[in-house]
Amino acid sequence: MIVVIRQGQNEKQINNLRNWIKSLGLEIHESRGENSLILGLIGDTSKVDIDLIRSLDIVESVMRIQEPYKNANRKFHPEDSIIDVSGHKFGGRHFQYIAGPCSIESEAQIIGIAKAVKAAGATLLRGGAFKPRTSPYSFQGLRADGIELLLKAKAETGMPIVTEIMNINHLDLFRDVDIIQVGARNMQNFELLKELGKTRKPILLKRGLANTIEEWLMSAEYIMSEGNMEVILCERGIRTFEPYTRNTLDLSAIPILKERTHLPVIVDPSHASGLARLVAPMSLAAVGAGADGLIIEVHNQPECALCDGPQSIKPDAFAQLVKKIDIMLPLVGKERD
Amino acid sequence: MIVVIRQGQNEKQINNLRNWIKSLGLEIHESRGENSLILGLIGDTSKVDIDLIRSLDIVESVMRIQEPYKNANRKFHPEDSIIDVSGHKFGGRHFQYIAGPCSIESEAQIIGIAKAVKAAGATLLRGGAFKPRTSPYSFQGLRADGIELLLKAKAETGMPIVTEIMNINHLDLFRDVDIIQVGARNMQNFELLKELGKTRKPILLKRGLANTIEEWLMSAEYIMSEGNMEVILCERGIRTFEPYTRNTLDLSAIPILKERTHLPVIVDPSHASGLARLVAPMSLAAVGAGADGLIIEVHNQPECALCDGPQSIKPDAFAQLVKKIDIMLPLVGKERD
Amino acid sequence: MIVVIRQGQNEKQINNLRNWIKSLGLEIHESRGENSLILGLIGDTSKVDIDLIRSLDIVESVMRIQEPYKNANRKFHPEDSIIDVSGHKFGGRHFQYIAGPCSIESEAQIIGIAKAVKAAGATLLRGGAFKPRTSPYSFQGLRADGIELLLKAKAETGMPIVTEIMNINHLDLFRDVDIIQVGARNMQNFELLKELGKTRKPILLKRGLANTIEEWLMSAEYIMSEGNMEVILCERGIRTFEPYTRNTLDLSAIPILKERTHLPVIVDPSHASGLARLVAPMSLAAVGAGADGLIIEVHNQPECALCDGPQSIKPDAFAQLVKKIDIMLPLVGKERD
Amino acid sequence: MIVVIRQGQNEKQINNLRNWIKSLGLEIHESRGENSLILGLIGDTSKVDIDLIRSLDIVESVMRIQEPYKNANRKFHPEDSIIDVSGHKFGGRHFQYIAGPCSIESEAQIIGIAKAVKAAGATLLRGGAFKPRTSPYSFQGLRADGIELLLKAKAETGMPIVTEIMNINHLDLFRDVDIIQVGARNMQNFELLKELGKTRKPILLKRGLANTIEEWLMSAEYIMSEGNMEVILCERGIRTFEPYTRNTLDLSAIPILKERTHLPVIVDPSHASGLARLVAPMSLAAVGAGADGLIIEVHNQPECALCDGPQSIKPDAFAQLVKKIDIMLPLVGKERD
Repeated sequence: MIVVIRQGQNEKQINNLRNWIKSLGLEIHESRGENSLILGLIGDTSKVDIDLIRSLDIVESVMRIQEPYKNANRKFHPEDSIIDVSGHKFGGRHFQYIAGPCSIESEAQIIGIAKAVKAAGATLLRGGAFKPRTSPYSFQGLRADGIELLLKAKAETGMPIVTEIMNINHLDLFRDVDIIQVGARNMQNFELLKELGKTRKPILLKRGLANTIEEWLMSAEYIMSEGNMEVILCERGIRTFEPYTRNTLDLSAIPILKERTHLPVIVDPSHASGLARLVAPMSLAAVGAGADGLIIEVHNQPECALCDGPQSIKPDAFAQLVKKIDIMLPLVGKERD
Repeated sequence: MIVVIRQGQNEKQINNLRNWIKSLGLEIHESRGENSLILGLIGDTSKVDIDLIRSLDIVESVMRIQEPYKNANRKFHPEDSIIDVSGHKFGGRHFQYIAGPCSIESEAQIIGIAKAVKAAGATLLRGGAFKPRTSPYSFQGLRADGIELLLKAKAETGMPIVTEIMNINHLDLFRDVDIIQVGARNMQNFELLKELGKTRKPILLKRGLANTIEEWLMSAEYIMSEGNMEVILCERGIRTFEPYTRNTLDLSAIPILKERTHLPVIVDPSHASGLARLVAPMSLAAVGAGADGLIIEVHNQPECALCDGPQSIKPDAFAQLVKKIDIMLPLVGKERD
Repeated sequence: MIVVIRQGQNEKQINNLRNWIKSLGLEIHESRGENSLILGLIGDTSKVDIDLIRSLDIVESVMRIQEPYKNANRKFHPEDSIIDVSGHKFGGRHFQYIAGPCSIESEAQIIGIAKAVKAAGATLLRGGAFKPRTSPYSFQGLRADGIELLLKAKAETGMPIVTEIMNINHLDLFRDVDIIQVGARNMQNFELLKELGKTRKPILLKRGLANTIEEWLMSAEYIMSEGNMEVILCERGIRTFEPYTRNTLDLSAIPILKERTHLPVIVDPSHASGLARLVAPMSLAAVGAGADGLIIEVHNQPECALCDGPQSIKPDAFAQLVKKIDIMLPLVGKERD
Repeated sequence: MIVVIRQGQNEKQINNLRNWIKSLGLEIHESRGENSLILGLIGDTSKVDIDLIRSLDIVESVMRIQEPYKNANRKFHPEDSIIDVSGHKFGGRHFQYIAGPCSIESEAQIIGIAKAVKAAGATLLRGGAFKPRTSPYSFQGLRADGIELLLKAKAETGMPIVTEIMNINHLDLFRDVDIIQVGARNMQNFELLKELGKTRKPILLKRGLANTIEEWLMSAEYIMSEGNMEVILCERGIRTFEPYTRNTLDLSAIPILKERTHLPVIVDPSHASGLARLVAPMSLAAVGAGADGLIIEVHNQPECALCDGPQSIKPDAFAQLVKKIDIMLPLVGKERD
């Protein structure tokens, strides 16, 4: 860590800082420029609070040399992590298709879609039981009953299942869930992350709406620091000034993450734009950028009043998309399951 | 709610949408432009999922006419809400000074600061027991012990206390806390909000790092929809591209909120920039913009190695700031407690 | 255009607004909700200043139904525009590779790279003569001399050339340039756009760092409204809070633009991240998202002290990338020149 | 400047970088951590292209120690710059009120408003002749005729005038203009900045919609590096995700600028939100934050159909605001002209 001291500060204050740094077990390497004093902190700085140092009146700027994440850091784990979910592998040369409805609505619905997406090439099943909704007046999901129905679809099709947790007190309900999803709004719900770190379930960690890649890796670190190394990252769009799309899918995050971490990275192209007609182009784009998989909303409700165009695509559109991606995978050094 | 249909859609799909809208108990007022069909939805649209409609392939754009928040909406509650915390009032002509340390560290520290800020003009005491930290390796606060110490400071000084909750399972610890704070990262932890809505404690709801004013009011609505009407909003800075400050304090949110809601609004000038030397100017700015109070970090640790300049200001700087603000309050139609 | 009037406004002010709207030649269709009055403006609203209406004290919100762009609007020009640059076509099923150095430095350099990228598959040559630089102390390009050298490379290789204009007074120098580029920082230099609209040269219009898709199309409209219909849009990354990449490439802009406009859209994967190692994955991603071409920085300076890794890739890496993309193009309904 | 080399790079490439750095006349101070090599660049690094270094494949991160701006830097000019405009001073303890209409429309209008704002306390007159408009179909201002009318108002009232330039070819028209304004969209029109640097007129430099404080100071530096030291900075709101306001006024930029530069800083509260009813609270906030002046839109058109509420306030509201600010100025160490 490099700390630049502001010009003209008194020596006593600088000494206070030096003593505090040493009290953390770090050594200091000093160099003096024309208008500045520079302190290089040597040792394990991952526990040093960079915001605290930055806030000091005598400090002009601070820069980390070491990343603050360790377990998630590729430097200390150069090989890709491969996360095996009942034989379906995330990471390395593997590519997974997770598909299913936004919300679980009925037994017929979830089993129908599960069979349809499996036939179309999906390898895992998703479905929302607990739904994070901006409005308290919106449908909040079937909750415990939704998980029951999802487990039936798992039994029926043999597909591993992915669903979101919103409250650590619900953990018992997730006993037979294969991957527990943490939604964007809970990416920094640190109490939830710590508890999930104590489980031995793969965790699908979505990026927060306005979180940096470093913060995202620190949230993965929360889970990993408790002993659970099975974290799959999921880019789902960040918040920008652009109003034509709900969020802006940040695909450059994928090659950046591939450098920084050994964890697998998948993409959710359905939620980012909020537009079904963007799912296919953005899925191909995600594959081009190097994603390890996709999580796509697919629906199959011919009877539904809104069936002509909800946020998710239909099984036949999904099947066509899978075919294209299967052709594309070798170009990016990947292969389907 | 206004729904604009894209040009050239087939009538059957539009009819599906019409039927779905009517199934929600709404009426439709249609008008046809040169290149578009416009549906005006009449009735209570607060439960209508605007994102679902926007995602339909036949829909070009959607616009709410009614705000989706009701309990928080000034239209249905034109008078300012006044929230009384042991005789200290938030809202209307009232102005409150909440002050105290970032983290509670020891009995001597918290009682020392409590006395100092009270003497300097503070009306409520803040202090962090549970600390949301980006890194799992950073100090997470004294937790339950911190609340114990804060309660001692309350007993000693008679000041009502404000402290942050991070996990609903800790609620019992907050029995004698006067205002429960929800931090920026938990602004959309809907499960937590619902449980806090079942208490009868005033809730200090901080704005999320990248949340719109409407989303913030919807989070207030989560609390209020469960019956707890005592919500105090707190602007603490939003995330932008500017790196010189940690966050950008959005003071125009204050007059906007004053139009939209009857709830009191206070400002945290300490966390937004992360720089102690910005606390005084940004506090005066917040008062100018119409804030109902300030929550300021103040520390008082002459023995501390970093005492020369943490993120918070010292009691004497705080006392000077209070004096200036007391002079300024009549200009904005306010008076101190 | 829909105008929602705030509750409880006096009738005289609303009448002033009604009269002003009628004075613009528009008709008004009114409807009254429970808490609001809604004015629907009927007629050509493209000249109506939406910001002016939004700023009125009696107005709660405004929403456009018609897009404010006409010449660029796909509604009035459903077929893709095909822009032919000396036989190289942009738009429709066509795909173009523009490649070349960031800055033109010498005759040997630009001719060397031109030959190398042509051999590798490039169809047009780029090179910076006038360089927009944040700092006045940075190298500003060879300027007029740079264009001379670029023209020599064009003569030598037969490749059409693309280079950036920064000052309308330099237009004479661009007589033999095939595509004139407008950089991100000049996207809203309206005086420059109007003058370029009077030429009959294809214009490569880069998206501004923080401009919406609608503003971008309005800048295209500035050029087109003067009679020059040959505008090629270029996505090059937008500004977000993420510090690991210089900018965030917004690839969802491509399918959105394809719906909204008939103009071709290409992508610059070199400038967005500022990292050469992201060029290949982000190029494949851009193709997946539906781009009509790429503009890529390629360098070839074995003697240069920094040759090991500037922002641009080398000809052999570019050649490999072109091979992959050529295989991928049929998947997205495209073919190379 | 600190350059951190990525782990495991080959020595030859690092040597290329070392040689290139030395070729710029800089010395290198190296230090080696456990997983990284750190190069400290010593000497004048203001001409070093930080983006170029950051883009190198062997580089992990780069950090400036010296700011890249010199003339604008408070380190080399510790005293506030005082810019005297016909006896009206910007900077130091001085405070100026610039007021006038958004657009100049007629002689009667501009002279009427000029007299009204002077009576209300304004010290300089603003008015738009050349108007930057997002749409080519919107009114672009009276242009040269507008400046003529503004000069008449100056002759009539004796107030110095401020108006915006959009095209360097118009410079002759600005001969008798007292302060030349550069709008947000032209903040990085470097060709324009350089030409304005050759004049000896005070320049009002607005912050770009999405520009950092450092970029803004670099644009001031463009003007100053050509010899014109009279630059007044103007904060006018930045682009964020918040839709309720057009832009977000970044008032924390004021105390930050006061540390970094000696140049005066004023605030435009009218354009940021686009809402007249926010002008008064945001003006008081700007004063609290330490602004050296305000530039406010004021109109006075009783005959106008839209007179009830355009974006600007009326002279009487402006007069009341001036009175409040005059009372507030001593609190922030300021006095009116």
